[in-house]
Amino acid sequence: MRVTFLGTGAAGGVPLYGCRCPACERARTQPEAIRRPCCALIETATTRILLDAGLMDLDHRFPSGSLDAIALTHFHPDHVQGLFHLRWGVGASIQVWGPPDTEGCADLYRNPGLLNFKTVEKFTGFQVGDCFVTPLPLIHSKPTVGYAIEGSDGCRFAYLTDTLGLPPKTEAWLRRWGKYDLAIDCSFPPGGIPKNHNDWTAALEIIERVQPAHAWLTHIGHTFDAWRLSDESQVPPMGVSIASDGETVELGTGNE
Amino acid sequence: MRVTFLGTGAAGGVPLYGCRCPACERARTQPEAIRRPCCALIETATTRILLDAGLMDLDHRFPSGSLDAIALTHFHPDHVQGLFHLRWGVGASIQVWGPPDTEGCADLYRNPGLLNFKTVEKFTGFQVGDCFVTPLPLIHSKPTVGYAIEGSDGCRFAYLTDTLGLPPKTEAWLRRWGKYDLAIDCSFPPGGIPKNHNDWTAALEIIERVQPAHAWLTHIGHTFDAWRLSDESQVPPMGVSIASDGETVELGTGNE
Repeated sequence: MRVTFLGTGAAGGVPLYGCRCPACERARTQPEAIRRPCCALIETATTRILLDAGLMDLDHRFPSGSLDAIALTHFHPDHVQGLFHLRWGVGASIQVWGPPDTEGCADLYRNPGLLNFKTVEKFTGFQVGDCFVTPLPLIHSKPTVGYAIEGSDGCRFAYLTDTLGLPPKTEAWLRRWGKYDLAIDCSFPPGGIPKNHNDWTAALEIIERVQPAHAWLTHIGHTFDAWRLSDESQVPPMGVSIASDGETVELGTGNE
Repeated sequence: MRVTFLGTGAAGGVPLYGCRCPACERARTQPEAIRRPCCALIETATTRILLDAGLMDLDHRFPSGSLDAIALTHFHPDHVQGLFHLRWGVGASIQVWGPPDTEGCADLYRNPGLLNFKTVEKFTGFQVGDCFVTPLPLIHSKPTVGYAIEGSDGCRFAYLTDTLGLPPKTEAWLRRWGKYDLAIDCSFPPGGIPKNHNDWTAALEIIERVQPAHAWLTHIGHTFDAWRLSDESQVPPMGVSIASDGETVELGTGNE
């Protein structure tokens, strides 16, 4: 099983419109430093699941029939906006799993087109191809779930964004899950009062408590990148990486 | 005064996701045949107004401070989605005019960021730079207005999308306006039962009734382009053009 971090940015992305901070200026000259809207791809030998749909070029990346499902963490625009034109397409319908949220986003429910919306039930897993996917409640400003995904080869990956902290039951579930890799919301640098999203301190505390084999920080804002540029001594602890757009990772295999 | 048709596509764009029709296949190999989400730029010597905001790369096209205002015809995603990340930017706020619509789109009203939303009143003009802009009610599935724009040089341009037909008062207003150029919704080929948007027949009937100096058809769907490809004898009457993405037109000057 492997994951590709297609977009690792917070809502405004990096560079942020109008911002002249060192991180935004760097992203304007170094394309590899750009952070696009939140989106990741999980692939096994037989199955492709898109986690979130914030990218606007999904039609180019994923021709009709090439995705087994889309799993949305929540219905904020930066996580679903790629669906607005995709839905009007023709051909095979696409399963789109999402949290219980009667509002959805804009008119997606009213005009679903080829999207087949399905509502998850917390901690109740479902099968997509050879992957078993379990929705885990998170703590955000709109109903939000992360996804814990287990491939038929025993490989395990949890994708937890957007969130500030973890509900105790989600934390307990992860602590019982055995060996797995993790991607987690880390929007802000330390030192402020984080709102709706983890900062560096909150993300590392979660990682310490739920003990993944390896963790990647994602949903990163420009202030986080600017903080890292300003102080190169700030490196993540062993077993923690900062995800980049386009990065593909072969996930650890086996359990325990 | 000049207009640039930045995006001339209907909601799904051309090519449409998964579609193998001749128009969609052509757009995949000929970039000049692509139709992006609806968006146009009005420029005078001193003023720049963006009409609709469906493009997702507005941050690249319009650096902070380069737009005097954005005027939204309505709050469907393909006309506003470019604002979702722009709003989180820093720097000068942007005036965004739109129709009376308490719903807006997704959380744009709740989290406007640097967008300064203003609600228009039908037939009540307002000044943006050296342009006088009058909102004209249209007939669509959500509250919608077109915009009639007059530059200080007397140049006049009306942008009427999305609509199926015209309300009698809008038609009467245009008939009294003198000499002007026009862009109008023409989503579908003739022969069906048009819904929420003009087809070829309805668009040409409106043009015949309101007698612009020149008219451009816009908000074009793939079935319209496919129909034109299938029958090259179908050409617009004198004084009517089919707009293309990226096309810039110097508008007629003077009045009467």
